[in-house]
Amino acid sequence: MTASPPAIVFDLDGTLVDSVYQHVLAWHDALLSEGIELSVWRIHRRIGMSGGMFARALLRETDRPHDQALLDRIRAAHTAAYKRRRSDVRPLPGARALLRQLSDHSCKWAIATSGLIEAADHTIDMLDVPADIPIVTRDQVAHAKPDPDLFIEAARRLGVEPLSVIVVGDSVWDLLAAQRGRMLGVGLLSGGYGTAELEAAGAYRVYDDPADMLNHLDEIGIR
Amino acid sequence: MTASPPAIVFDLDGTLVDSVYQHVLAWHDALLSEGIELSVWRIHRRIGMSGGMFARALLRETDRPHDQALLDRIRAAHTAAYKRRRSDVRPLPGARALLRQLSDHSCKWAIATSGLIEAADHTIDMLDVPADIPIVTRDQVAHAKPDPDLFIEAARRLGVEPLSVIVVGDSVWDLLAAQRGRMLGVGLLSGGYGTAELEAAGAYRVYDDPADMLNHLDEIGIR
Repeated sequence: MTASPPAIVFDLDGTLVDSVYQHVLAWHDALLSEGIELSVWRIHRRIGMSGGMFARALLRETDRPHDQALLDRIRAAHTAAYKRRRSDVRPLPGARALLRQLSDHSCKWAIATSGLIEAADHTIDMLDVPADIPIVTRDQVAHAKPDPDLFIEAARRLGVEPLSVIVVGDSVWDLLAAQRGRMLGVGLLSGGYGTAELEAAGAYRVYDDPADMLNHLDEIGIR
Repeated sequence: MTASPPAIVFDLDGTLVDSVYQHVLAWHDALLSEGIELSVWRIHRRIGMSGGMFARALLRETDRPHDQALLDRIRAAHTAAYKRRRSDVRPLPGARALLRQLSDHSCKWAIATSGLIEAADHTIDMLDVPADIPIVTRDQVAHAKPDPDLFIEAARRLGVEPLSVIVVGDSVWDLLAAQRGRMLGVGLLSGGYGTAELEAAGAYRVYDDPADMLNHLDEIGIR
């Protein structure tokens, strides 16, 4: 038996683009617009999980009953608030170089995000992603992170076994989803989590950002 | 020999008021206005240290030479960018109740912040701080955190020995300054650092926020 060469599935926000803090304050805005006061760090710690789960978790923390109309209003307000902030969003250092390097060395890769395709389009444009790269978004699977569906669908489109996939993400939800999908997890600090948190969630290695990962590709077995 | 009862010195941003993320994105704005692209998480990890040290550290990370006029412009741009965001800033849960409880039980307390008094005034107004509480700001000491000067000056104004002081802060710079001042450090997660980072920096205990600390005052020896 020969194991297949590793393929990489990247999270998007906080992993390839520097957009986590703008998303965090956009959620904070959206909640305040409904009179819901929730500490910003608690929003930060939930970012990256499925939007529906995220909104429900936030409401639970504020002791509000589940109310679908309220959730829909909050999500729409978040989208609007994020759009006001996204002119400051940049690719993370090394993101484009890392993706190019993988393509140049015929290492398969994909992007899998808990965001919707409308939100992802703007960010993916910054990354010069070739047209044949699979992009899996929230609307294409039954459950978003921390369920492994997004990563499993990305593996399917890449034509590789989950066991050959390395998931790269900045949040504990990426790493939990990777573990549940039987994939290797690599953490990046660029979403604002600390090393210990990412390691505790299952990160095999933790790098600062895509530039740091690019400098250490041999550590994760990419030739 | 009888040890004096403990006195508490609080950091302000991220410890008593929920303002860290707004400050982080305000610094990001200010740097972009000078064409300096620095990842947001790296700014987050520097927040709470002295403004001058902070700006110099940021310039070093971007390989810019030290330039006092540039630093002054960035600091002014940060102040303006923060003012645009501060309508979203709220006291952290339990902050007012915790401070009131300490006053009611005759536990001495003070606030010590790396910010300037102009920036602190707006936030302190939210906390209903009695007029006799010492507020030590950046402009009143030679060096801000991670030097211990701010906390030592707060202890002096409270009339207590540094060894009797408990420093409460959300950043590793608070905890490093506490160690250097021979004070006990307590960490709060409300600034967005993780538990392990705060413990590694010397936190004797880590709580979620002021509300959580209020529920566990006995653990730090407050009667």
